[in-house]
Amino acid sequence: MPKVRKDNEQNAMASSRVSRGLQIKGRIWIENEGQAYLSWGRIRLLERIGEYGSVSAAAKSMQMSFSHAWHLVEDMNALAPEPLVEKQAGGRQGGGAWLTDSGKQAIHDFSQLMERFQGWIEHETL
Amino acid sequence: MPKVRKDNEQNAMASSRVSRGLQIKGRIWIENEGQAYLSWGRIRLLERIGEYGSVSAAAKSMQMSFSHAWHLVEDMNALAPEPLVEKQAGGRQGGGAWLTDSGKQAIHDFSQLMERFQGWIEHETL
Repeated sequence: MPKVRKDNEQNAMASSRVSRGLQIKGRIWIENEGQAYLSWGRIRLLERIGEYGSVSAAAKSMQMSFSHAWHLVEDMNALAPEPLVEKQAGGRQGGGAWLTDSGKQAIHDFSQLMERFQGWIEHETL
Repeated sequence: MPKVRKDNEQNAMASSRVSRGLQIKGRIWIENEGQAYLSWGRIRLLERIGEYGSVSAAAKSMQMSFSHAWHLVEDMNALAPEPLVEKQAGGRQGGGAWLTDSGKQAIHDFSQLMERFQGWIEHETL
């Protein structure tokens, strides 16, 4: 996981250095036709699904409700050119889930974007 | 007012170009010792106070409650090295308000930062 996401608190994806007590913080996210598609939280969910092999285990590891995680996955899959997550027959009650190549690519691309954002903000001052 | 703030919706301070239907959006803000100090909304409030000469008229022009605007001004003044807004005796019920040189400087500095953020995000793609 890139450093940028470990060092910052929940809501701030990137932070500048502190200068005269002041710090610039920022968030970025991706929209598809004006609808939220990828964000820091959504990418973390994808990563956990890849790690745990199920939406429910991934949700649990993030203290997120299963229904919220399920909704986010359905939402991302609908907005993506190709599904990011595939789920085993068994649906909501059971079965596993895994990342497609598009899902892995989305994590990679968003992580790279976040690194560039952190790189930009680090060199900024008010 | 810089173009960046007119062209974007309420919550997104800056937006990239649309590429394959996708658009990067982002927000930045300033914290002082971990507390919210300046943001897009707060800067807009300062600008309106400068324009209207009173906190209540500024609040009204933004469909913001007077008590919320008053709280934000008190908060910014407390976090700033020097007050950003001065208020005439008469206090909450009346009197005028105006920007100090520090207040004008804060608007200028934050606007410049936002322009640089917009410049960065415009050249980014996922």
